[in-house]
Amino acid sequence: MSDPLVIFTPSGKRGRFPVGTPVLTAARQLGVDLDSVCGGRGICSRCQVTPAFGEFPKHGVSVAGDALSDWNAVEARYDEKRGLPAGRRLGCQATIQSDVVIDVPPESQVHRQVVRKAATERAIEMDPATHRYLVDVAEPDMHDPSGDLQRLETALGETWGIQGAEVPLPVLAKLQPALRKGNWQVTVTVHHPHDGPPRLLDVSPGFDERPLLGLAIDLGSTTIAGHLCNLRSGEVLASAGIMNPQIRFGEDLMSRVSYAMLNPGGDAEMTKAVRVALDQLAREIAAEAAVETGGIVESVIVCNPVMHHLVLGLDPVELGQAPFALATSDSLSLAAADLGLTSLHPQARTYLLPCIAGHVGADAAAVALSEEPGNQEALTLVIDVGTNAEILLGNRDRVLACSSPTGPAFEGAQISSGQRAAPGAIERIEIDPTTKEPRFRVIGCDLWSDDPGFAAATAVTGVTGICGSGIIEAVAEMRMAGLLDASGLIGSAEQTGTSRCEPEGRTHAYLVHDGTPDGGPRITVTQGDIRAIQLAKSALYAGARLLMDEMGVDSVDRIVLAGAFGAHISPKHAMVLGMIPDAPLAAVTSAGNAAGTGARIALLNRASRGRIEQVVRQITKVETAIEPRFQEHFVAANALPHATAPFPELRRVVTLPEVAFNAGGGDGGGRRRRRRA
Amino acid sequence: MSDPLVIFTPSGKRGRFPVGTPVLTAARQLGVDLDSVCGGRGICSRCQVTPAFGEFPKHGVSVAGDALSDWNAVEARYDEKRGLPAGRRLGCQATIQSDVVIDVPPESQVHRQVVRKAATERAIEMDPATHRYLVDVAEPDMHDPSGDLQRLETALGETWGIQGAEVPLPVLAKLQPALRKGNWQVTVTVHHPHDGPPRLLDVSPGFDERPLLGLAIDLGSTTIAGHLCNLRSGEVLASAGIMNPQIRFGEDLMSRVSYAMLNPGGDAEMTKAVRVALDQLAREIAAEAAVETGGIVESVIVCNPVMHHLVLGLDPVELGQAPFALATSDSLSLAAADLGLTSLHPQARTYLLPCIAGHVGADAAAVALSEEPGNQEALTLVIDVGTNAEILLGNRDRVLACSSPTGPAFEGAQISSGQRAAPGAIERIEIDPTTKEPRFRVIGCDLWSDDPGFAAATAVTGVTGICGSGIIEAVAEMRMAGLLDASGLIGSAEQTGTSRCEPEGRTHAYLVHDGTPDGGPRITVTQGDIRAIQLAKSALYAGARLLMDEMGVDSVDRIVLAGAFGAHISPKHAMVLGMIPDAPLAAVTSAGNAAGTGARIALLNRASRGRIEQVVRQITKVETAIEPRFQEHFVAANALPHATAPFPELRRVVTLPEVAFNAGGGDGGGRRRRRRA
Repeated sequence: MSDPLVIFTPSGKRGRFPVGTPVLTAARQLGVDLDSVCGGRGICSRCQVTPAFGEFPKHGVSVAGDALSDWNAVEARYDEKRGLPAGRRLGCQATIQSDVVIDVPPESQVHRQVVRKAATERAIEMDPATHRYLVDVAEPDMHDPSGDLQRLETALGETWGIQGAEVPLPVLAKLQPALRKGNWQVTVTVHHPHDGPPRLLDVSPGFDERPLLGLAIDLGSTTIAGHLCNLRSGEVLASAGIMNPQIRFGEDLMSRVSYAMLNPGGDAEMTKAVRVALDQLAREIAAEAAVETGGIVESVIVCNPVMHHLVLGLDPVELGQAPFALATSDSLSLAAADLGLTSLHPQARTYLLPCIAGHVGADAAAVALSEEPGNQEALTLVIDVGTNAEILLGNRDRVLACSSPTGPAFEGAQISSGQRAAPGAIERIEIDPTTKEPRFRVIGCDLWSDDPGFAAATAVTGVTGICGSGIIEAVAEMRMAGLLDASGLIGSAEQTGTSRCEPEGRTHAYLVHDGTPDGGPRITVTQGDIRAIQLAKSALYAGARLLMDEMGVDSVDRIVLAGAFGAHISPKHAMVLGMIPDAPLAAVTSAGNAAGTGARIALLNRASRGRIEQVVRQITKVETAIEPRFQEHFVAANALPHATAPFPELRRVVTLPEVAFNAGGGDGGGRRRRRRA
Repeated sequence: MSDPLVIFTPSGKRGRFPVGTPVLTAARQLGVDLDSVCGGRGICSRCQVTPAFGEFPKHGVSVAGDALSDWNAVEARYDEKRGLPAGRRLGCQATIQSDVVIDVPPESQVHRQVVRKAATERAIEMDPATHRYLVDVAEPDMHDPSGDLQRLETALGETWGIQGAEVPLPVLAKLQPALRKGNWQVTVTVHHPHDGPPRLLDVSPGFDERPLLGLAIDLGSTTIAGHLCNLRSGEVLASAGIMNPQIRFGEDLMSRVSYAMLNPGGDAEMTKAVRVALDQLAREIAAEAAVETGGIVESVIVCNPVMHHLVLGLDPVELGQAPFALATSDSLSLAAADLGLTSLHPQARTYLLPCIAGHVGADAAAVALSEEPGNQEALTLVIDVGTNAEILLGNRDRVLACSSPTGPAFEGAQISSGQRAAPGAIERIEIDPTTKEPRFRVIGCDLWSDDPGFAAATAVTGVTGICGSGIIEAVAEMRMAGLLDASGLIGSAEQTGTSRCEPEGRTHAYLVHDGTPDGGPRITVTQGDIRAIQLAKSALYAGARLLMDEMGVDSVDRIVLAGAFGAHISPKHAMVLGMIPDAPLAAVTSAGNAAGTGARIALLNRASRGRIEQVVRQITKVETAIEPRFQEHFVAANALPHATAPFPELRRVVTLPEVAFNAGGGDGGGRRRRRRA
């Protein structure tokens, strides 16, 4: 009689094993993904499985009720102490008696998939770099003297195949007491970098089942956002963001580079500020999740090149001038404490994704990791909108990248009534095409401005200005309402039929909201604001267009707007402005904080680190600053939506009034007249 | 016509090279050991050679006066600026014109031999782990963006074959300014561990010719000694020693282990104390050599297991009790700053030799490296005398090691008039066999006690006690003068015929010096002192004897006394005591501070690190504490020189009076009587 047949689901892996073989042993021999920290001692309960009984015609087996051994004392004790879910067995205790089908539930799989909750749902395969291992270490023997560490290394090699691990002194210092307290059984926390030897992060007596945590950090110029994750389940335990305290040295990146250039030691000041903030973020986020920061053994940081240099303690001065040389472009694996993350586990590690080029940083690499343009059949344009826009274009064949100096207008800076996204800022706006009257919403209030109760609801914050997404909507709505012509000129009250189009010097401005009766500001969109947005959107479009030229295409299949700001941009309005190339509106999606997602992928999946390093090496970098066609594209993109590109997909859903204002003089009108002459 | 023949001396390597080949190129192709830091740019002058002209029948060539190209501008400029010794050429500039004999002077050889000045002269082959390299780095290119580090790595690989180097953040931070200041030429300091990837320690603009320095440290329980060496020439620039401040926690090692056991945090206190002292030693020794501590890029530390654990920040408690488990026995390569050596170069590295066993430390490994018992034809016994004696026995076939708990008597502790070796301590003593009168010398004074002027010369220090070597001589001299019988019993005044043998309780004491008239102490050797020395010497002898048993021999060919204390022991007196096995006196030598020499070898020769690690693994460790025969040997060794071993070699040069004292009662006599009964 042949040995019993064992079939594992969901993998479908199968094999025959002698009666009495533990399920865990069978799983390991078949390469079934079944977790275990204690190596089969019935301690960790990670190897829980669910045997199925009855007829399984699909698998061609019939499973008897006694296909597995009876519950043993270990399982009974475990059930009593911790509770074993109904139908579950411990894979290391239950042994095979006859043909059986065994399901490995997701929580017992090391490499299970965790579905992201973001807009574009995608699964992250769990493959964390840091694991715990229970080991039994031989006791010392005077006749064959060897260090406790050497015997631990032998046990790690024999039990878990871990060899050549680096052992920091503070971990070595904990070894002897841990071995004796644990009666020669210890749990070792091992970090397995994707590109180097393993490293012991900790050793504790007996079986240590405290969770291992990791922190994914998106270090932006303005905000620093973090996600605290369980490194086994992938679960996000808490998310939080704080302001980047470097703002006091300069709002945008180039101001900070200038600060470093002009102030000796200025780079060190900024380095210190951001490192203190990183640790503060870690403490706040751990507090929110009600966990100890000491349980955080890994972090991943994504950021733009200037933040990358500043957090590493590298003077960013070279990034402020051609040829924009990075100190280092490769990924980095470091002690977290070296970056100021001193409240994490003392041996915690940090991984920084590689930079793509002097202007295209680890944040863009993270976007590439999250959105995977190189893995798409469809030609995909990924735009990470910010002060510098990072732009990726690609499909399975090839991926291109550039950055484009959009300037801060999209973030509400250099706009007359502009402000950062904060309560009181107009974030949404609609203009009635007939009455030309606006209605809007402000951050921090769910009501529209023409809803009853709006005034009361915004009494505290007031209506203070227009944030980045608000100004984009405002300009696009003005264009759709016929208040603005294709050249970007605001019409007069006479030309537009609304008194909201007020004269302002030799040009006009559109009054969105007059808060003066309540002591608030008069919020207008001026001709200067339109020009600032035109400059920014031209730069963005020209960057995308340059990549399309390089790729040899005139249109793209998909457009992904990434970045925290990208999440708030309405695709329709962006396209009315001509920020992005023409495409079916349904083909334009937001990836939310794709850089943050990329950081989380790198945190939870070790192999993704090697993958993105490979991808980054294969990305073709296009330098906008030295490409003559960039200037041509920039000029042609000045019109709304574009001087020459027809934008047929946009015109299929939106009517753009064929207005042309030349009265009233002013810069724009003047230019327009000259151009028509 | 064939290419010119080029013969290099002293290597004798030869080959034919086309006319116009630079001498350095020819040397490299032939594998001739010719130094170069700048890679042939005429900057570093390390490749100086001396061409020889005329007839060389031995080599079969005739060398014309114009066998090398004329001096060129680079050589002329170098000579003008720095001076080129007469007859010297720069190997990278001078090119081969016809057959030539070229001598590579020792200072142009990387792997030249440095002769030690120690008692046993031996050459150390220079093979330092840290080198400087001049590299030209490609400038950044916007079209092909890469980090400055990545281009440096490419240049290091292409020019010097250095790949995969680790780059600490602080070094990376120096890279961009150095590259620009050096106009894309930098000097990189690279550490090549014998067992890991290379590591960049520094980068500086242009050609950096500051010397690279290393510090060899012998970290003893009582004193810490250091040798500051030039890592290129091997020259010892300065040597210094300081007291180990841990003495305040306990004179001997076991007291310190007890301190750690009894005082929570006591190990950390001792760690801090010794680390502060190490850095102080580094600063003092650099000041003495008039160099910057920042030039010290490497250090090597040898020490016993307890000091090893304490300097590493490991609680030594396990070393105080069976089975004497080391936290780690392998060698360690660490950041010097991690051991408190913070005044060295910030990236300086430290190497700790491996420990042999729980009682046989890295100092014993260093002795093995220095004395190489495993490389001897003659069966060699190496004894490192201290509170614990480390004993090695071996030849080419096999090496054995043990430690023996001699206790602190040899260091003057537990001796009634004992003291540490310091001015005023009796270090040499002779007893006239006829008059039984002593004469002695004290540390800090060149006169004997019966020389005129002795009292005046010692007026300041006084005669304060007897140090370790003094007590050994005193006991041996008492035995040779017939004041002491073979059992170790001091005779009475009546039995010995001198009133200096005074009653003391039920035993007797020998008066060495009565300082009371001058307010000083009465210095005697008591029966208790004799017993303490007997215990210590029995342990030492028993350890050596145990290794001889294990080796299956009854005598050894050579005895080497190592350790700072070993240098002061008179072989004859040691043998009269039976501290060491019988051997021709000429076969007993002192190796001076062999552990310190071993540290210096490991510092200057990288390959020796791998070698001693290999040797240590092959040494057979014998644990005295659990070996029943140790007790037998110990008891038999109690007599002076020995109860059963005949010591024929000793008796050939020394007459030992056949006295036997049993009168006067007392402990010793009492025991003796009982034993004889």
